[in-house]
Formats: sequence, structure tokens, C-alpha cells
Amino acid sequence: MMRFTLLHADRRTGARAGRLDTPHGSVETPAFMPVGTHGTVRALTPEEVRDAGAQIVLANTFHLMLRPGAELIGRAGGLHRFMHWHGPILTDSGGFQVFSLPRLRRVTDDGVVFRSPIEGSEIHLTPERVTRIEEVLGADIIMPLDVCLGYPADGAAAEEAHRRTVAWAQRGRAAHTHAGQSLFAIVQGGFDHRLRERAADEMAALEFPGYAVGGLSVGEPRTLTHELLQAVTARLPHDKPRYLMGVGVPPTVIEAVRRGVDMFDCVLPTRVGRNGVALTPDGRLTLRNAAHASDLAPLEDGCPCPACLGYSRAYLRHLFKAGEMLGPRLVSLHNLTFMARLVRAMRDAILEDRFDGWSGEVLARYRTAW
Amino acid sequence: MMRFTLLHADRRTGARAGRLDTPHGSVETPAFMPVGTHGTVRALTPEEVRDAGAQIVLANTFHLMLRPGAELIGRAGGLHRFMHWHGPILTDSGGFQVFSLPRLRRVTDDGVVFRSPIEGSEIHLTPERVTRIEEVLGADIIMPLDVCLGYPADGAAAEEAHRRTVAWAQRGRAAHTHAGQSLFAIVQGGFDHRLRERAADEMAALEFPGYAVGGLSVGEPRTLTHELLQAVTARLPHDKPRYLMGVGVPPTVIEAVRRGVDMFDCVLPTRVGRNGVALTPDGRLTLRNAAHASDLAPLEDGCPCPACLGYSRAYLRHLFKAGEMLGPRLVSLHNLTFMARLVRAMRDAILEDRFDGWSGEVLARYRTAW
Repeated sequence: MMRFTLLHADRRTGARAGRLDTPHGSVETPAFMPVGTHGTVRALTPEEVRDAGAQIVLANTFHLMLRPGAELIGRAGGLHRFMHWHGPILTDSGGFQVFSLPRLRRVTDDGVVFRSPIEGSEIHLTPERVTRIEEVLGADIIMPLDVCLGYPADGAAAEEAHRRTVAWAQRGRAAHTHAGQSLFAIVQGGFDHRLRERAADEMAALEFPGYAVGGLSVGEPRTLTHELLQAVTARLPHDKPRYLMGVGVPPTVIEAVRRGVDMFDCVLPTRVGRNGVALTPDGRLTLRNAAHASDLAPLEDGCPCPACLGYSRAYLRHLFKAGEMLGPRLVSLHNLTFMARLVRAMRDAILEDRFDGWSGEVLARYRTAW
Repeated sequence: MMRFTLLHADRRTGARAGRLDTPHGSVETPAFMPVGTHGTVRALTPEEVRDAGAQIVLANTFHLMLRPGAELIGRAGGLHRFMHWHGPILTDSGGFQVFSLPRLRRVTDDGVVFRSPIEGSEIHLTPERVTRIEEVLGADIIMPLDVCLGYPADGAAAEEAHRRTVAWAQRGRAAHTHAGQSLFAIVQGGFDHRLRERAADEMAALEFPGYAVGGLSVGEPRTLTHELLQAVTARLPHDKPRYLMGVGVPPTVIEAVRRGVDMFDCVLPTRVGRNGVALTPDGRLTLRNAAHASDLAPLEDGCPCPACLGYSRAYLRHLFKAGEMLGPRLVSLHNLTFMARLVRAMRDAILEDRFDGWSGEVLARYRTAW
């Protein structure tokens, strides 16, 4: 079973440093989880992801269920063996993907119905079925089916989404039999402070081993994100990990850690990396810009990643101009290394009670918007 | 300077085992050279290419000259540093690419004129200019500009192509000043036995440090390839390496080694690998075939490559179905490992005077056409 140890909270901000022990190894928190949608972190091997400093990866139940199917992964010995990643894995529930489908979905108290975007057949998902699929996949941490809303969401819709999310978390847990896995709760509640607070209180009372916060950073103003997040984490038990879903913009990650979040996942570092955008302490660096055409410096001075140790910006830019796969590989690797170093630096600052000063300096230097 | 040592010729067939010492390290022959068209072996890092067993790579002067330009590569310290491959490199001359352009070329005794396929400007290439560009790139072995014909080629065209190729080799050599590089000759001559023999004799008399055979395996019947190759290698000096350009089909490589060839290059292993086709001792294995959908075996039993050690055919097939870059990476890596193990096995068989029996067994087992 997973165990979370809160090692220290920064004296001034309350930002947390901890450790998550899972059946497949430990994760130091704050932690950033690279996303391996189809059971592969895009363009990278598990060894590269690990060497970049990632200690846990996320895989998407929704995508894997559709292709290649949970049954095959179960026969292969579970997702760890199938994808050759032997560290901790977290699987989401598919809720976010289902509620992002453009058409053909029906939501009832029972669950959701949608058409497979791959071969068109009708698929029914209930909280119980999601739990069963996640048990077959065998991740260390799993998420229950939840109802995800976009921004803005009206009060009645947010209320209903919250009610179903709470009921589904309980049903998902009731169906859960795999002792080696930890099923987190997901706190929804839209963009109303009081509903978010109630959602946090109700989930906290149900005593889950960990708490995700969903439905934030989906287009609402940044100050609202911060306020709602603060309201939620203030109500969650101190001794359980908090996971802010789908967030990987460096400044937002820092602001969330300041508000007591321990875990993050996002496709951003690998997605922008595949497009030749590198994350650096000064913000985003776009390799296609002509300024880098003859720049023989590395992406980031002092970065220990393979891209920075072996290659110049001019060479990396050449790879993107020529459509060569090594470009997306190397910049994805750099960006994951950047995120791992960022959470590591936050952890060090927290353990030494200097998170406030550290974050002020880092945020001032990070110049681009996202 | 490069030095070639012929270590042993198989007693029965004359197949050769040797060693090529270059300023950037040694190459055991027979050798297969992966192709890094744009200064990158597609989808792979130099470390992976080396670990797959490759000891030398080829890069394309034509492509690099057009993008990012030789001048930038020169300022970066040469191609080795620019692409982060510290072993031996061979650059071709661009002749093959120029003569493959669909339109807008003019060939005179002076050289060739064509329009850049990237930005349309008119480019003049002479044997002297090609040598100068290759000197800036700084490869260990370089090729002179040659005239390449397709199959079939009429007698007059073949005669003229041969005449220009001989003259251009001499002009390329006269312009060559970089003592650390070895400029090979290319034997052309079309598909006429007597012209091929004359081409080999004339080039041999000019005493180059190595000899490439160009314009074979371009669509002519396989028996003709073998006959012409035999006629050429029989006339080339024993103490110089022979390089069959653009050939990487495993059975053809074996037949060419039997006829005294030492070096090969081809995009085939990486090109088919990117499309999910693996080279195995039984021939090509096409991952998209439904037969592999739930096959938990590796691509090739006993293969030490990362793809075979870490992943099942079912997982690799899933990567290709899902459009994930890790698929092309892993199968390219497997195929380069396959080629390195193939040339290594040939070398061992030659050194033990059992090439004839070895090649008979391997060819009988390799069941697919190419």
C-alpha cells in the first residue's frame, strides 16, 4: 500500500515537502508526473524518463482501455511490465477525456455513455467499471470516475457534477479490491468558493488516502485558480497527499506548491518540447526563431540533460527544420529534466524554510506567460 | 590518415575481414554504415547508434550543404562535434542525390547545375566545390562527385558518365588538401561488363586509398548485380577497402561480402524500422500485421537490443497503431543492431574460414524477398 510522509512544511508559506512510498518505489514531493497517455511518455524510453529525474508517471485509463485494451495489458502482466516502467504509476479515471469528447455522450447518475473515438462503438463507463479496469492495469495510485466541467460552469451544473463526483468516488471505492493500489478522491466543485469548500469538506470526511483537485486551470482567471486552490487545500487533511490535476505550467506549479499541493501532472513539457519549445529559467525558448539559427550555446547553461550536454541550439533548430525525430526527443527530455529540477529545487527550499524568497526570485526570472 | 588492414580472406570464397583505422577510431570490416542524412541517424542518438554496434556513420553532403549549410557546421567545429558523433564518419558527394532530382539539372564536363529543393536557388556543383564542402564538414572518408545512372542506361550515356566520373575523381583529388581525410574513388560504368571492368581498371590505376562501387542494385536483375560486382572487385587492389554504395538488404550484403566487399551503407534498416518492419533472421517482420496484436514475444529471441530486452511485439505494435514515436525509435534500433550483428557474424565466419557454409544457412533461413 501507498504511504505518505509529510517531512516538512515551509515555516512561512506552508509549502510541503514529503515522500510517497508505493509498491513500486518512492516519490519525493513536490513531484511532477510526466504523462504517458498511451503507455509511453511521448518520444522517450522509460530509462530516459527516469534519468531525467521523474519518479512517477501518469497513464490514461481512457486511452489504454480503447487501445490496446485493458485485457491485453493484464495478460502482459500489467501496465508496469507492458510499458517497461518499473517505478510508480498513477492512472487517471478517464473522466476528463470523456467529458472532453465533442459529441455523443450521456451522463446519468449511473455513469457515462459515449462512442469510441477509435472505432465508434458505444461504451458505458460506471465508477465500478473504471475501478475494475484500473485494477487490471495495476497502477500504484488510481483515480475514481469524476464529472469534469469547463469554465465557466453554471451553479446547478456544478452542484450536480459535485454530487455525482462524491457518489462515484464512494462507488469506485466500494468496488475496489486490489490491496496494492491506492484510490484517491477527486475534489471538483466548479468555480464557486462555497461549493469548492463543501466539496473539500465532504471528500475529506470520507477519508481517502489522497486527494486530487480537478477542474482548475481550465481557463478561469489565475487569481481565481489560486483562491479556489487555497480554499480546498486548507480543508484537506494534512497527512494526505494533494494532487493538482493537469497542471504543468512552471509558475502555476510554484503557486500551487505555495498553497500546499504535493503532486502535478501535465502533457505540457513533452507537448511543447515536441514542437521545439524548451522550458528554461528565463521562460520558454522557441527553437524555430531565427535568432537560434547559428547559436552554438546549449538550451540552458548548467542543465545536465543529454540535450544540453551534447548539442547546440543551432543543431537542435536544424533537427526541427529538417523534420528529424531527434529534435522532439531531445527537447522533451530537456523539458522533463527542467520540471524534475524545478520540483527538486522547491523541495530543497521548503526543507530549508526559504520557499518564499526562492519562489519570488524564480517567478521574477521566468518571463514568458506560460 | 585512414589505414586499411586486410586481416584475412575466407579460403573458399575470398570474403574479406579487415580493419579500417581512421582519425576518429577503428572500424572492423565487413562494416555496415547507418545513414544520418541530415547529420542524425533518424530517431536515434549517437550513443544509441554506437551501442547498437555501428562503428561508422554516413552523412549526406548534399542535404547538409543545403541545410543547415556547411559554413555553420564548420563554425561548430565540424560535423563530428555538430552532430555529437565522435566515431568515424563518411560523407557521400551528393552525386546520387543530384542525379535523383526530378528536374532542373544540367550536366556538363564542368559539373552539375540544379535548383535547391528547399528554397529554389540555382546551385552549381563541381568536383572541386564538393571536395571543399566535404573538407569543411570534416568526415574521415569522403567521396568525389560522380555521375549516377539508373537502370537501364544506354551505352553512350554509360560511357559518358564513366568518363566524367573518372575525370571528376581526379579533379576532386587535386583540390583535396585536408590530410586527415581519405578521398575514395567511385567505380561507375552502368550495366555493361566490359565498361565496368574498364572503370575498375582505370580507377585502380589511379591509386586511391579506397574504392566505392556505385550505380548497382538500382533495379537491375540480381544476377547481373552479382556478376558486375564480381567483375569489379576482381580488378580492384587487394589492400584497399571496397565499399558498395546504398546497399543494405541483408541477402544482398551477404552476397556482396562473398564477392569481396568490405563496407555498405543504406537507409533501409532505419527506413523500414520507422514503418514498423523489423529485420530478423527469418526475414522481415511487419508489426502492423494482426498476428502480432497479442504476441508477448520479443521481436527476435536472443537479440540484445533495447527493443527486444524491454518490449513485446504486442507493445511495439500498439506504439505504431497509436502513432507513438517510441515505436520507430525502438524498431530502428533493433534493425541497426541486426545489421551490426550480421556483419559481425560474417566477420567471425570469415576469420574461421567457414563463410560459405554460414552464408548458405543464413540465406536459406532469411525467407522474405528483401
